Amino acid sequence: MSLVLTPLPNIPMVHTGDDLVEMIWNGLSQADIILQEEDILILAQKIVSKAEGRWVNLVSIQPSARAVELAENIEKDPRLVELVLSESNHILRTRAGTIIVEHRLGFVCANAGIDHSNVAGEGDSIEEWVLLLPENPDASAKIIRQRLEGRSGVHLGVMIIDSHGRAWRQGVVGVAIGLSGLPGIVDMRGKNDLFGYNLRITTIGAADELAAAASLVMGQANEGTPIVHVRGFPYKLRDGNLQELLRPKEQDLFR
Amino acid sequence: MSLVLTPLPNIPMVHTGDDLVEMIWNGLSQADIILQEEDILILAQKIVSKAEGRWVNLVSIQPSARAVELAENIEKDPRLVELVLSESNHILRTRAGTIIVEHRLGFVCANAGIDHSNVAGEGDSIEEWVLLLPENPDASAKIIRQRLEGRSGVHLGVMIIDSHGRAWRQGVVGVAIGLSGLPGIVDMRGKNDLFGYNLRITTIGAADELAAAASLVMGQANEGTPIVHVRGFPYKLRDGNLQELLRPKEQDLFR
Repeated sequence: MSLVLTPLPNIPMVHTGDDLVEMIWNGLSQADIILQEEDILILAQKIVSKAEGRWVNLVSIQPSARAVELAENIEKDPRLVELVLSESNHILRTRAGTIIVEHRLGFVCANAGIDHSNVAGEGDSIEEWVLLLPENPDASAKIIRQRLEGRSGVHLGVMIIDSHGRAWRQGVVGVAIGLSGLPGIVDMRGKNDLFGYNLRITTIGAADELAAAASLVMGQANEGTPIVHVRGFPYKLRDGNLQELLRPKEQDLFR
Repeated sequence: MSLVLTPLPNIPMVHTGDDLVEMIWNGLSQADIILQEEDILILAQKIVSKAEGRWVNLVSIQPSARAVELAENIEKDPRLVELVLSESNHILRTRAGTIIVEHRLGFVCANAGIDHSNVAGEGDSIEEWVLLLPENPDASAKIIRQRLEGRSGVHLGVMIIDSHGRAWRQGVVGVAIGLSGLPGIVDMRGKNDLFGYNLRITTIGAADELAAAASLVMGQANEGTPIVHVRGFPYKLRDGNLQELLRPKEQDLFR
């Protein structure tokens, strides 16, 4: 069976309070897609954050002494640095313009996923507004999934993705930051290969593989296609979460 | 446009000297796929290595003193450790059973991509045989691409992928280890978003996003679907290579 990823057309700009389920439903309709058992919907983080009103006006931020000092070292707006710190558990590394942190949600990313790019605030001076990640992406995914399931009558997965840089390799790739109704990882432990050996690969980052695929379809240059419909995900759906995708700190050789 | 990934059916076990182009062609035919402009074929590393006869019999390996010492520390076969070292530029980290290395091809991976699992040697005592990565995966991809283009009369991309573990996150994901005819990364620098800001995301790991998608379709438990056909890759094809996906050492904060 093929894996088919379809960006939903004509998704409008998202504003605080907008109903994403309604948007998904309209987008599906415009793409002539009727939801089937085990379909998955993937949403760009940005539209979830916007619908949830995760805007912060930098004018309202009073940077701490720590933020001011760090901001000077890496040549970044101290108010933005303050926000990055407040959204993070701790700092892994810094370099010019970039703070690699463990986000309060547990994953490692640059600048706590906060940025100026491609965000427009609710006010006039849009350059002063920045957008935080959703408060609880797993929960956001779950609500959207439950409403879509109620409306369609079929079992679905819903995932919220962002683009993260990586150690060792160039280029950002899509990764899961919240999910509901699909597995985060697929555990192959105890399974044997064709020759009866235990598999060397014990755990597949299935949700992240799907996130990368969806990110490819969304592109990055615009907000035209922030919702992707997936059919043919090859693993059984179950209710996974972000946590299972995060390597426990004590097992991580690259902190 | 949808991105469609189709695993080719009935690909036989691959042996040294087998013609992968012939296998791809037969698989496409069985899937009723006629190649079109800008289609991409993705191959699991394992079948390329096997076709190229990259088997090594551990009985033939004489471990160095360094390999013996390291093998003792991490509880691994010293002959396998010797092979890992000989396939690597240097070691980044070690832990029980695992050596994280910079492979001679430039990427960071566990155990130089060498393993016992799901490989059967050409001899009787299969447990003594291991499979190395292809000698030059970019070159392998190029030869396959050129032959497929000659046969089909259309421009194609060909990529060879493996599954790699990651810093910070659980689960392996598919990544490119060789490519020809498609971009490794897509450079968005200088492009503006909807609001005229420079994009925060400057470089997309497009080939790795596609590799992850293909890996999802291949699965890991068997060799039944080591070739995936892709239609609808959203970026313009050009002749990329592995190198562009590798972060220069001096820019890497996690070595």
